[in-house]
Formats: sequence, C-alpha cells, structure tokens
Amino acid sequence: MAKLVECALNFSEARRAEIVERIVSAAENVRVLDVASDASHNRTVLTFVGQFAAVGEAAYAVTARAVELIDMNSHQGEHPRMGAVDVIPFVPLQDASMEEAVSLAHDVGQRIGTGLKVPVFLYEAAATRPERRNLADIRRGEYEGLAGKLQDPEWLPDYGPGAPHPTAGATVVGARTYLVAYNVNLGTSDLGIARAIARALRAKSGGLSNVKAIGVALEERGIVQVSMNVVDPFKTPLHRAFELVRVEAERHGVPVVGSEVVGLLPLSVVTDAARHYLRLEDFEDGQVLETRLWGDE
Amino acid sequence: MAKLVECALNFSEARRAEIVERIVSAAENVRVLDVASDASHNRTVLTFVGQFAAVGEAAYAVTARAVELIDMNSHQGEHPRMGAVDVIPFVPLQDASMEEAVSLAHDVGQRIGTGLKVPVFLYEAAATRPERRNLADIRRGEYEGLAGKLQDPEWLPDYGPGAPHPTAGATVVGARTYLVAYNVNLGTSDLGIARAIARALRAKSGGLSNVKAIGVALEERGIVQVSMNVVDPFKTPLHRAFELVRVEAERHGVPVVGSEVVGLLPLSVVTDAARHYLRLEDFEDGQVLETRLWGDE
Repeated sequence: MAKLVECALNFSEARRAEIVERIVSAAENVRVLDVASDASHNRTVLTFVGQFAAVGEAAYAVTARAVELIDMNSHQGEHPRMGAVDVIPFVPLQDASMEEAVSLAHDVGQRIGTGLKVPVFLYEAAATRPERRNLADIRRGEYEGLAGKLQDPEWLPDYGPGAPHPTAGATVVGARTYLVAYNVNLGTSDLGIARAIARALRAKSGGLSNVKAIGVALEERGIVQVSMNVVDPFKTPLHRAFELVRVEAERHGVPVVGSEVVGLLPLSVVTDAARHYLRLEDFEDGQVLETRLWGDE
Repeated sequence: MAKLVECALNFSEARRAEIVERIVSAAENVRVLDVASDASHNRTVLTFVGQFAAVGEAAYAVTARAVELIDMNSHQGEHPRMGAVDVIPFVPLQDASMEEAVSLAHDVGQRIGTGLKVPVFLYEAAATRPERRNLADIRRGEYEGLAGKLQDPEWLPDYGPGAPHPTAGATVVGARTYLVAYNVNLGTSDLGIARAIARALRAKSGGLSNVKAIGVALEERGIVQVSMNVVDPFKTPLHRAFELVRVEAERHGVPVVGSEVVGLLPLSVVTDAARHYLRLEDFEDGQVLETRLWGDE
C-alpha cells in the first residue's frame, strides 16, 4: 500500500477571500480535502494529502505564499496565533510511519527557517524537548510576545533565525497521529453537567488516555455537548469514549441523544466500532468491498 | 461516482485445477476479487467487479470457456447444480441501479442462449415470473432432471433453446442486492438451541425480513453457530440480526461469544453499525478518509 501523509496547515487569514484563495492555490500535486475558514478566528485550515515529497513541497509553497501575503502586525482574530502560518501538523497514513512524518517535519521546518527566514519550533512527536510537545506552550505570548520570548535562551528556535520574521512571526511544525473530533450530545440544557462529564473524560483530569474534552452549550438546540478530541483513536477507540460519556450521563440522570464526528476519520476507527459492538472475530478492514475497488492491492 | 457491478459466477468444476484455471483466465478487463473452489461440492465461485460492459463481457467469456471444457454428463459433486455454469448473479454497486443490473442479466442471458445454445432462466430481481425468483425452485431436478423439466410448458426457458445443451445443461442468470454472510457464535454445544434461534431469525418462519438462517455445529471449537445470509443488508442492518440473536440466546441461557462476516461487505453496512451503536447524527460515508483517497470525487 502507498505511503501517504496528511497535512492540516493553519494560516492566519480568513476575512479576505482572495488572499485565502492565492495561498491555497500554492498547493500543487496533492489532493486538497478541505479548506475551512473561520472569520471570527481570522484563520483557515487547509487539509491536503498525498505522497511525502509532494506534501512537503506543497506545505513549503503554501507557507512561502502566506509569508509573502500576510502581515501579522495588523492581524486581528479570536484564535491564539503566532505566525502567518501558525502550525503545520503532518499525519502519517496507511503504510507511513510516525518516524517518517517526524523526518518530514524536520525537512520542511528547516526549509522554512532557512529559505523564508521564519523561526520554526517543532512540536508533538517531532518536539526536540518535552516542554515543546504541546502547541499551547509554544504559542503562549502569541505574535505580540514573540520578540520577547525569543530572547529567552530556553526558546531558541529549532530552525531559522533567533528573531521573529518582521511580518510573519514564527511557525510551528510537527507530526501527530490522526485526531478525531468527536462530540456527544446530552438531553439537557445544564452546561454544568456537560462540563462535569468532560472533566471525567479528559485524560488530564483522570479520564481516558488520549482524550481532550470540554463541555459546550449548543444554543440553537437548547442542549449541551461533551466536545472531544480523541488524539489517538487507534489506541483509544471512539466507543470507549462514547460508553464512558453514556455511563456518566446516566449518573447525572440525563440521556445521550446523539453524537457526531466532525470532519474525516480513518476506516479502521469505524470498523473498530463495528468489531466492538457486533463482537466480530478476525474482521479485516480488507473485507470492506470498497477497499478492493480502489488503489493497488 | 462510477457505476460498478459485481458478478459471483458459479461453475461446476473444482477438482481439476488446470480446468479451473483456464475458465477463470477467460475473465479479462475486470478486477477478480475471489476464486473459491470447493472440492466436495465440485464447484467454484468466481467473484469479479468492474464496469457494466466489461463485467458482462467477462461473464459471457467465462461461460463460453466453461461450456467448452465441462461435461455435465460425468459431473459429481455435493452441491445442487444444473449446468456447467450453474448461476450468474449480478450485484449493482455504488451508483448503479437494480434496473441496470437486471438489464445486464437479460443481455448476458440472451447472449448465452443464442451464442452458446444453452437454455437460460432468469432469477431473483430479473425473474420473469414469481415461481422463478428462487434459485432452488429453478434448479430442482438438477442436471439429471433437466430434459424432463424442459418438456413442461411451465418451464420454457427465458432465453436459448427448449432442450438442454448436450454437455452444459442450463444456466441461471439474474440480479440481486449485496448479500452478507453473517454468523453469530453461541457459547454452547447444543445444536438444538442454534436451530431454534435460526428459526426465530429466519424471515420465512416469522423472523427478520431479508434473513435466511440455519443452525450449524462448529465441531473443532465445540460450539454452535447461527449462520445467516442477510440478503438486503441495506434494509435489514447487521446489528438488528445480531441483537435479535443476542436476545434469543439470553432467553436460552447461553452467551454470544463472537460473530463473523464471511467474505466482503459494503462500507455502508459497516458505517450503519457504527451509526447505530454510537448514535451518530448525520454521519456520511464520505467522512471515511479512505473514500477521499481513492477514485474520482
């Protein structure tokens, strides 16, 4: 099977459509899966997939275009950000390994640092030290605090110059596993319950490994939701998160009224749910007919 | 999306490997998914998929080769059969319709009747009268009883001559939905329980629509199994069969220890299971990442 990698590049423009279009169009020879612009965040997530060389080239070309067109000195938006291209995660797919994705992060990070003179920090699986694993820790201070941060010897960038790019700030590059955005809706309007259940699910507060969770209100529907990122759905299957939410909801006397996956998820995550609930023995993803109709196998 | 059709052609040879090979090799310009030979049945199922024209051509070419190489007058085997090519079901996939598959069955049936001088009966969705829907009813009498059967005006073939081919018998051609072979294993060695539960599942004896079921013993494992064909898994989802077996097993005081899908099944049948158990709202098959990596969409 092919070695593929996905890239979910976040850049700091969403309000000027033709700037977004020019940045997105710099991605060539890859399959663009999604372009998600959020005007209040003033941020766009460009998701594309392909073979390693093509994805690396596209990530660099998009970054070069964004650095050319975005001036962070006048950037306003609701989402935390430190650069014209804020973060570039690579996700290995199919036969590709995490090591290969980390290696790609290094290659692209070095090209951005050297070729575009933008300081680069490596994060997640590509992090060069534990304090840099988490994006939030690297980004603390945002664009405005970057000059001061870079004077701290603890924050020497992994690639590129030791001072901010005059208009493009800094960029974070890394590799991580496929993250699934999974939300479970509760039949109540009590946000406190959603928050309590989110706390029970969250790895950091004693919940399930690989799960980040918050409670949110769905104003239009008059109900609340446990909104999760399952950062390794191959280790922590969706059904485990679902069942724990269900059990906790029962404890609070409220029903689970539905759930949703936001965006895409890998086939094996779906088949894992079927394997669990139908008690399937020896079920291979290759038994899904469509896997035999496509690709070369 | 493409219009694809699958064909699971059954022919009456399995013991002479080079005859099987020569027949199978007549299928060109299609993707062969499986060649399943059963020596005690003396029968092979050749499963292939492709666009309509190519699949129709391959079905005819394979039949022509089998008619040339198999002499039914000396055929011995455990499985009921009436022809060198016994049955040719076409299954519409993706954007193809049942009407198109029925039309293909007519085309191929007519070519076999006219070009190979083999009497052809249309069955399942292509049946020209209700008594011909069921394969078992058409095949009753098998090869040995065919000459007599064809003298009955009720059994005038749909295509081809009104007398058996001197060595190839008759062939049944038709169109049906994707059938899933789904078995549920019970934690008991009592075959009577498996048979009772099979009776409860079977459409004909008051069970679930679209389900055929029998109880079987798994000698090597010392347990029993409810073995099912779900003949329309899009209408009757697997989880409904599973849950009914589970509830019936509980009534008999035995546990469900596992289940298995034999062969392939369509993606939507798997996602239906995930939708049911995870209570997914608005989940589209297109959210499975791999569907975006293949094909043209």
